[in-house]
Amino acid sequence: MSELRRDPIADRWVVVKTKEDSLAPQDYLQEDHSSHQAAICQFCEGRENQTPQEVDVIRAEGTSANTPGWMTRVVPNKFPALTIEGDIGKRGIGLYDISNGIGAHEVLIETPEHGKNFAEYSVEEISNVLRLYQRRALSLAKDKRFKYIMIFKNYGESAGASVEHEHSQIIALPMVPRYVIDELEGAKAYFQYRGRCVYCDMIQQEYEDKNRIVTENEHFIAFCPYVPRYTFESWIFPKEHESVFYSLQDEERLALAQILKDMLSRLKTCLADPSYNFYLHIAPLNHGNQESYHWHIEIVPQLTREAGFEWGTGFYVIHTSPDVAAEYLRGEGKG
Amino acid sequence: MSELRRDPIADRWVVVKTKEDSLAPQDYLQEDHSSHQAAICQFCEGRENQTPQEVDVIRAEGTSANTPGWMTRVVPNKFPALTIEGDIGKRGIGLYDISNGIGAHEVLIETPEHGKNFAEYSVEEISNVLRLYQRRALSLAKDKRFKYIMIFKNYGESAGASVEHEHSQIIALPMVPRYVIDELEGAKAYFQYRGRCVYCDMIQQEYEDKNRIVTENEHFIAFCPYVPRYTFESWIFPKEHESVFYSLQDEERLALAQILKDMLSRLKTCLADPSYNFYLHIAPLNHGNQESYHWHIEIVPQLTREAGFEWGTGFYVIHTSPDVAAEYLRGEGKG
Repeated sequence: MSELRRDPIADRWVVVKTKEDSLAPQDYLQEDHSSHQAAICQFCEGRENQTPQEVDVIRAEGTSANTPGWMTRVVPNKFPALTIEGDIGKRGIGLYDISNGIGAHEVLIETPEHGKNFAEYSVEEISNVLRLYQRRALSLAKDKRFKYIMIFKNYGESAGASVEHEHSQIIALPMVPRYVIDELEGAKAYFQYRGRCVYCDMIQQEYEDKNRIVTENEHFIAFCPYVPRYTFESWIFPKEHESVFYSLQDEERLALAQILKDMLSRLKTCLADPSYNFYLHIAPLNHGNQESYHWHIEIVPQLTREAGFEWGTGFYVIHTSPDVAAEYLRGEGKG
Repeated sequence: MSELRRDPIADRWVVVKTKEDSLAPQDYLQEDHSSHQAAICQFCEGRENQTPQEVDVIRAEGTSANTPGWMTRVVPNKFPALTIEGDIGKRGIGLYDISNGIGAHEVLIETPEHGKNFAEYSVEEISNVLRLYQRRALSLAKDKRFKYIMIFKNYGESAGASVEHEHSQIIALPMVPRYVIDELEGAKAYFQYRGRCVYCDMIQQEYEDKNRIVTENEHFIAFCPYVPRYTFESWIFPKEHESVFYSLQDEERLALAQILKDMLSRLKTCLADPSYNFYLHIAPLNHGNQESYHWHIEIVPQLTREAGFEWGTGFYVIHTSPDVAAEYLRGEGKG
């Protein structure tokens, strides 16, 4: 079990395990790689009974739930950061606001094949993953306790992946995370001043400059942002303004699958299969700023060990200019 | 050379290397541990001519600058993130505000002995380190281009330390980092509402609760914060309200050295010599909120590989409750 606690100064919510469920120091010292072995991997086809029951799935016609025959399946996380049952139970303790650690925490097993890499999936396979992102987000959005749906992928140990078999995660939260509030407020202030979406203007500026664009297709553009927070960071934006991704139709979803596969392939080639995270930045549920917020995907490779330090001090150093990173990702870098 | 670039949405400044000075992909793939060898360490006594000339030092009487005989010395960083010479040169490029990468970046070599650990320094040795923190901050504060002095230490590879010989870093910045602004604004809002310093109230609440206090002395208190951002995070606060640390007198400085040594020794024992960062959170230069801001030191061990992911998503999970962490740091944990 866990609690959600609010930092009263920086207005940030943090999930804190209860005393009973806390890890002891020795738990951090033993690195357990057993979950990486294909021989006992619970995410592999044929071991469906070792995971919680699937909550959504794309599977071959005529096959039964929780048996082989699936392409992509979603199950509750066995070790959830937040638990689905109960009330929010908001309360105060002196300076602090706390609530129960209520939320959904699901795992999307992207492929039945252990060792198959996201960049190697077909466009259709990636489109299936995206379709389940959409379906789960729409389903979780019906729960009135939730205010935000967070969808992300950790790949590789340096990016926090504790299981090797490729998967994504979906978390529904009873509050909006601080970084989303910062983006929403910044975008809203810009809209009030200029009457335009700041992200649409950013895309326009990237088109004029050209140097940081890596690739594009009919519906999406991918570029290295002018002000990254990570070295070799890239963003994928829908060209048409839209605050959430839930309504993607088949053709757009295939276009997104194509550009995501393309970008992850480039990253893999360019940086020798690095650990990375990607996450969807989308507007909160039931928010009122559709005009000013523009959903997108951020892809961040984990190349240096400085993230922790930089996060603590607020001092970020990008060792490769995004213009140069884009050159390499386009395959034009001096090798 | 580098540029300072402002994220127009999240209002955050980032240091970006120029195209000419950018690292190529292969530079991230080769891990260079040569700087860890004592045989060629440039920070060791007797190799003073291999570093830039010292800008401040505490050394034995009668010994000359840049020769052996020093206890603690400060030199400019050979590979500075920011450069000291030039104008800020603020300008706009479309959506973005940029300026030249102007600032000071200094290295404080804490000890002449390679392999000696901070937790093993004497209280007097740590007091010398703190004295140089003070002197460098006061000296850099005279430069009207600078708005913030950042003082921090990275220990161990997981915490971003690229050199083994123990050292701290001092960076003077031409702007105030986002995280400091967030803290200042949160503390100011609380002060306006309650007429009290939020940190003083926090310390008071820790005294009433008792569970998260690790240790204290006449002038300082150390506790695990109720809303941490890192597992096993701890904070050291002066008991008397003060917004900056520059005016510490001998007795207080010794008290701070004592509690810092104590906390780092506890961390080392408890978590088997973990990588960690500590940083001073102090008010910006010439700011107007002495009443509402309370300086302190944050100590954050790097136990998990999740920092990058958490930073990207804004979703922080603390796997050990601060009450339990404090128990272990006090030496009372179930072993």
